[in-house]
Amino acid sequence: MNSSWWQQPIPSVDTAAQNAAAERQAQLTKPPGSLGQLEAIAVRLAGLQGTERPALDRLHVTVFAGDHGVTAEGVSAFPQVVTLEMVKNFARGGAAISVLALELGAELEVVDVGTAVDGGELAGVIRARAGAGTANFCEGPAMTESQRDAALEAGRAAAERAVAAGAQAFVGGEMGIGNTTAATALACALMRESPRGVVGPGTGLDAAGIARKAEVIARGLERHEAVNTPFEALGALGGFEIAALAGAYIAAAQAGIPSLMDGFISSTAALVAAREVPAVLPWLICTHRSAEPGHAKVLAALEAEPLIDLGMRLGEGSGAAVAVSVMRSACALHNGMATFAEAGVSGS
Amino acid sequence: MNSSWWQQPIPSVDTAAQNAAAERQAQLTKPPGSLGQLEAIAVRLAGLQGTERPALDRLHVTVFAGDHGVTAEGVSAFPQVVTLEMVKNFARGGAAISVLALELGAELEVVDVGTAVDGGELAGVIRARAGAGTANFCEGPAMTESQRDAALEAGRAAAERAVAAGAQAFVGGEMGIGNTTAATALACALMRESPRGVVGPGTGLDAAGIARKAEVIARGLERHEAVNTPFEALGALGGFEIAALAGAYIAAAQAGIPSLMDGFISSTAALVAAREVPAVLPWLICTHRSAEPGHAKVLAALEAEPLIDLGMRLGEGSGAAVAVSVMRSACALHNGMATFAEAGVSGS
Repeated sequence: MNSSWWQQPIPSVDTAAQNAAAERQAQLTKPPGSLGQLEAIAVRLAGLQGTERPALDRLHVTVFAGDHGVTAEGVSAFPQVVTLEMVKNFARGGAAISVLALELGAELEVVDVGTAVDGGELAGVIRARAGAGTANFCEGPAMTESQRDAALEAGRAAAERAVAAGAQAFVGGEMGIGNTTAATALACALMRESPRGVVGPGTGLDAAGIARKAEVIARGLERHEAVNTPFEALGALGGFEIAALAGAYIAAAQAGIPSLMDGFISSTAALVAAREVPAVLPWLICTHRSAEPGHAKVLAALEAEPLIDLGMRLGEGSGAAVAVSVMRSACALHNGMATFAEAGVSGS
Repeated sequence: MNSSWWQQPIPSVDTAAQNAAAERQAQLTKPPGSLGQLEAIAVRLAGLQGTERPALDRLHVTVFAGDHGVTAEGVSAFPQVVTLEMVKNFARGGAAISVLALELGAELEVVDVGTAVDGGELAGVIRARAGAGTANFCEGPAMTESQRDAALEAGRAAAERAVAAGAQAFVGGEMGIGNTTAATALACALMRESPRGVVGPGTGLDAAGIARKAEVIARGLERHEAVNTPFEALGALGGFEIAALAGAYIAAAQAGIPSLMDGFISSTAALVAAREVPAVLPWLICTHRSAEPGHAKVLAALEAEPLIDLGMRLGEGSGAAVAVSVMRSACALHNGMATFAEAGVSGS
């Protein structure tokens, strides 16, 4: 039996470059440690990029969009048609991630991995549809094995385009009405948590809506309690965009470029990837803490600490994109500051 | 008797522009509130800048440097000569704030308000010396009234240069070996706190050093317990760079441009300004939370919430400069995103 592509090896971190970067930090004209997390992220990027002087000038941002059969259970504040409408908005430059990618000078790709309504050929949208939305996971598996593999492959293809474009990091985003429900179900299955401790308002449910969402997720978890592996859970409960993100994170790590996780959905996709392929974990960089309550638990499961916490809960890769500026500042300081010796400044 | 310049009126916030910005936020293609603090800061900037579409493209960064007589008590991990050495490092582009200002495309000014060693004429350094460092506040007032007024005036002049250059916000930074000691003493005097609850490691004291610093501050507070007004406390315990920041914040507010506070020292200068001239408060924007423990208390006294918390404790305006990128993202999103109507996206 041939092994699957996601079982191919993942490089290890370049500890020599990381140590050289840490030594450089200690010589810069500031009290040791006084740049806080900016020092740590620069040193970590150095290890991942295999250079004493890390950079995030060239980024590749891919937003994956897909629909969710579980919306039939009334779990979202928005109608399902919004997913396709937002795909068009991404491509036309009107969405949050469109604006942020432009500000960062980053390429923005939009990949349709399976909206419920097929929008046909759309300018600026890559078609990689695994289906017309997933099935309702309360009634059966969200996707077939071949659909899951097609969505994983759509993610791999995006990561390979990022690598081909010379990206120094991959930023994945997602859009899909109902996808906090799918991600919460998946996170609960992976972390063995009950829905009540993970579920949240998503795009804006009230308390009654959240209670209903938890009940829907509990039914899904019960129906699929026999799943064994992270990728089985992904197929049973996940979404096409979540599978694509997981595939992209694994393929980016295989190619030796770090991925910047966004919020709750993409971190859950990262958890799927890291549980199925543990060597991916060092390549996942946590950028921000989402206001969606389940995010903190998923980050704890990933042993990840966010850089920023702005109460964002939009997805699309928007939190990661905002954090890129902070990481760029960290790189600029690391690379551009004078050492004590260069500046003729006395040490402590 | 003529009133002092700092008693001149300060404009009020443009609530019409602020309301228009809030209405715009509600129409952008995202769930309401999903951009978290980015929404709030864009709306607040709109009110301060008097426009529905705020911007932070043009910034003016001024770093004030001064020395502190209280270093004679052994309260810093670095020797006093470092203040002048760092002034040269700022001007030559090697310091953290030099690197960050360049990244932001912001003008960086360095103002010598009174280093202990007079460096003479230095390229890229504005001379506005109020003295050769302050006096040791354990033995008498840190500065005379005329020195205090000269330092306040140096800050006013910097704010006026910012206004003349068309800056959309003023960023003040500071450098001065021993200035966490002066700022802690001043913060304690203004907030009626004991040093033990405010004092911290500054550039890197150990536990014994912190205890000694608290004891030195307690002596200073006892010596100057008769001070009545915030500006009297500033003269008794403060530093030239702290007075200059306070003056700059007041003058910027008088001219109707917001100031971005940095960490513990600059927030303490802001507290002095706001206690002496309460109308300055709406014009002070909190950017980050410093790792210096007293910062949280000063921010609470200013009723200010930071945008970012990266464990920074460098000063120089560095935390404010890092936060500017986040605020620029907030403005870009606010100004650049499509509305539901423009994008043809269905609302919730």
